[in-house]
Amino acid sequence: MLEKLKEEVYAANRRLVSSGLVVLTWGNASGYDPESGLVVIKPSGVGYDVMKPSDMVVVGLDGKVVEGTLNPSSDTPTHLEFYRNFKGVKGAVHTHSTEATAWAQACREIPCYGTTHADQFHGSVPVTRFLTPQEVEEAYELNTGKVIVELFRDREPLAQPGVLVAGHAPFTWGVTPAKAVDNAIALEAMARMARLTEQLGCRTALPAHIGEKHYMRKHGPNAYYGQKA
Amino acid sequence: MLEKLKEEVYAANRRLVSSGLVVLTWGNASGYDPESGLVVIKPSGVGYDVMKPSDMVVVGLDGKVVEGTLNPSSDTPTHLEFYRNFKGVKGAVHTHSTEATAWAQACREIPCYGTTHADQFHGSVPVTRFLTPQEVEEAYELNTGKVIVELFRDREPLAQPGVLVAGHAPFTWGVTPAKAVDNAIALEAMARMARLTEQLGCRTALPAHIGEKHYMRKHGPNAYYGQKA
Amino acid sequence: MLEKLKEEVYAANRRLVSSGLVVLTWGNASGYDPESGLVVIKPSGVGYDVMKPSDMVVVGLDGKVVEGTLNPSSDTPTHLEFYRNFKGVKGAVHTHSTEATAWAQACREIPCYGTTHADQFHGSVPVTRFLTPQEVEEAYELNTGKVIVELFRDREPLAQPGVLVAGHAPFTWGVTPAKAVDNAIALEAMARMARLTEQLGCRTALPAHIGEKHYMRKHGPNAYYGQKA
Amino acid sequence: MLEKLKEEVYAANRRLVSSGLVVLTWGNASGYDPESGLVVIKPSGVGYDVMKPSDMVVVGLDGKVVEGTLNPSSDTPTHLEFYRNFKGVKGAVHTHSTEATAWAQACREIPCYGTTHADQFHGSVPVTRFLTPQEVEEAYELNTGKVIVELFRDREPLAQPGVLVAGHAPFTWGVTPAKAVDNAIALEAMARMARLTEQLGCRTALPAHIGEKHYMRKHGPNAYYGQKA
Repeated sequence: MLEKLKEEVYAANRRLVSSGLVVLTWGNASGYDPESGLVVIKPSGVGYDVMKPSDMVVVGLDGKVVEGTLNPSSDTPTHLEFYRNFKGVKGAVHTHSTEATAWAQACREIPCYGTTHADQFHGSVPVTRFLTPQEVEEAYELNTGKVIVELFRDREPLAQPGVLVAGHAPFTWGVTPAKAVDNAIALEAMARMARLTEQLGCRTALPAHIGEKHYMRKHGPNAYYGQKA
Repeated sequence: MLEKLKEEVYAANRRLVSSGLVVLTWGNASGYDPESGLVVIKPSGVGYDVMKPSDMVVVGLDGKVVEGTLNPSSDTPTHLEFYRNFKGVKGAVHTHSTEATAWAQACREIPCYGTTHADQFHGSVPVTRFLTPQEVEEAYELNTGKVIVELFRDREPLAQPGVLVAGHAPFTWGVTPAKAVDNAIALEAMARMARLTEQLGCRTALPAHIGEKHYMRKHGPNAYYGQKA
Repeated sequence: MLEKLKEEVYAANRRLVSSGLVVLTWGNASGYDPESGLVVIKPSGVGYDVMKPSDMVVVGLDGKVVEGTLNPSSDTPTHLEFYRNFKGVKGAVHTHSTEATAWAQACREIPCYGTTHADQFHGSVPVTRFLTPQEVEEAYELNTGKVIVELFRDREPLAQPGVLVAGHAPFTWGVTPAKAVDNAIALEAMARMARLTEQLGCRTALPAHIGEKHYMRKHGPNAYYGQKA
Repeated sequence: MLEKLKEEVYAANRRLVSSGLVVLTWGNASGYDPESGLVVIKPSGVGYDVMKPSDMVVVGLDGKVVEGTLNPSSDTPTHLEFYRNFKGVKGAVHTHSTEATAWAQACREIPCYGTTHADQFHGSVPVTRFLTPQEVEEAYELNTGKVIVELFRDREPLAQPGVLVAGHAPFTWGVTPAKAVDNAIALEAMARMARLTEQLGCRTALPAHIGEKHYMRKHGPNAYYGQKA
């Protein structure tokens, strides 16, 4: 069932490690199949080097395991919240990558200081509020998804394909699991460059006309970056 | 004798290098077999790429070499102090990993700034006092173990599985040698994230209700992270 | 057509990745053949691990594709501006390498703080002005090349073989594509060292008599570094 | 001639790259054979991946090439100055490793902030004065060696096996080429840890009684670190 998506999700999880975003078991990637309404996600706490594509767990949008003998990632309810609410999103990633996590821990959104950022994210990378004790108590992972969705009520998820959860770490997403990993790699690089830019004494955002140009030449209606699909 | 533990200790020592925690011969891992009361530890000053599982040295809890022709790690008396005093601890690691060592040199405990930390350590990572000239003179490595044990009189070693020795470097431990390495990897990541968080202008600890949740979902009586054993 | 140059440009693009200067598809290298007046450049948005030498695109100095079925890099008009204006330049590179990009984002030129810099660049690494909204609107990539050329009106491109584009990232060049990559590697190292030097409390430039010596022993008329050609 | 030493020097040069201390051709290692009074050193400007043991150049203590068709490293006169003046030194290394170079560029000696440093260097890592214009003009590389030797008039080279040349970069040495590389690796780690320690708000040196203990347990007359030779 969903063998191709399992391969994609497996490959996405492995790339989190080979890209240096994840150590130990600190990350997970998932993929969504809109046709069946099913999600494929990494099993919880399993090493990236021992897992196989067939270990990926299939769950419904309601969180029930549909196929697989292993527990799905404990962050599954957060991923599902994306797929239930973010139109067009078919891949999601969670890591504790160092630089992005530092911004999350500092509860600061990442300003757009340059075109590297503008090429990937339309605007700053937002940071959520802290969950309340009640939200944590009641349904921590689900409510983590909800505070993210809350933050994107007036944002376009595919134009700002990632977020920092306050005190926690980043989540990213995309139109495929692979794109969600690309966005996790990009976010980590942007976070590092932003920190270094501030260390060099600059806190001035990129002029808007340059940022817009970069975002639009890659993602706008007349984008000319890359090859025709 | 203890061939399986020797393999585990050997693998743990090698992983210190492959994880980037150790250069030259700056680290050592050991394992404890409670049944026989014996400890297996890396030989002193031997390169990780030339040593073999059979080079691991077996010592008693009293520090006497029981098997092996090489000298055990000069830090052996510190490791033994853990096994004599920390209930349930069956693996220990010492490194001079860069970020954790910087905090040790700064004589600062590492505050819990985020869930990456809370997932692994229950509370801050404590730092010892300096050893007195007399303690250094008399039995340096043993007394290093003693100041650590002193610090954990009111702490639970398996809930805070690591420490910074003032002016020196980190030690970590766990229920197996592999878990002690995991904790050394985690500590290095936490130390780096904490430094970057402060560089981004934040010195506010993670709200307790979030930290508790993260620690408990992974290590508490109703933990639901990972797979059933 | 231009098979040897395609191999060189291909190898240069691959080395951007293996040197850690580029992640995802954030960089491109090109080469110029003065005899035919043609330029070979990376195709746009194609992964470095899937592309082949034969995928390199051949364009004229006017930007028209002469050979190749893929779109050339979207930064092609910037590269062409170098080949049209910088005498002796036969290779060019664009990356978003972290440390150099941070200086570009901070809109700061990189001062010469030591001989590592002086060995490679004669003087500081200059930073362009921001493009105006009109320049961005009209012909962004071409005008990026133009503000760079403008900055080098009174500079010797081969003595200062690189530049920071304000808010964007570095470009480097050289007498071959491989030399342009060498200069990109050098620039990244210099940028990092300069940041760390400032962090250590120093903002004093290298005394000129030492910088001159280093540059001249490697690049001057009586250079004695390296082997006779 | 000196085939074994050539192999050692070759391996030392390669290890500079594999240890991450050197990019491009920014480093060199040499070895000294006291019996013949000859020195083996890397050829100038040759890539580490293309050179062979037989490419190593043999020079006399007077700097004359005794064997080899390639030019010796342009830093040869500096290396020779060590072998002429530092008793027991039989290996030397020069790199532009990032963290040590940053301290050199900041013209700051590296204080001993912890036992990692104390294990390797007895006291701080000194920094030279700048060479005068006349010294640069007259014999730059030889005089670089001379200002280093001048600095060690009241120091024991094998107890402080390295130095920072102001505005330039580190040199290290040891009883073999391999030990000189070990010291270069150690120096880079110490430099990084010292920077991070200061960033964490600490500028207090390690208490002397701890530093002495660490140095002496490894290098003193009653050293007990490592294996009996």
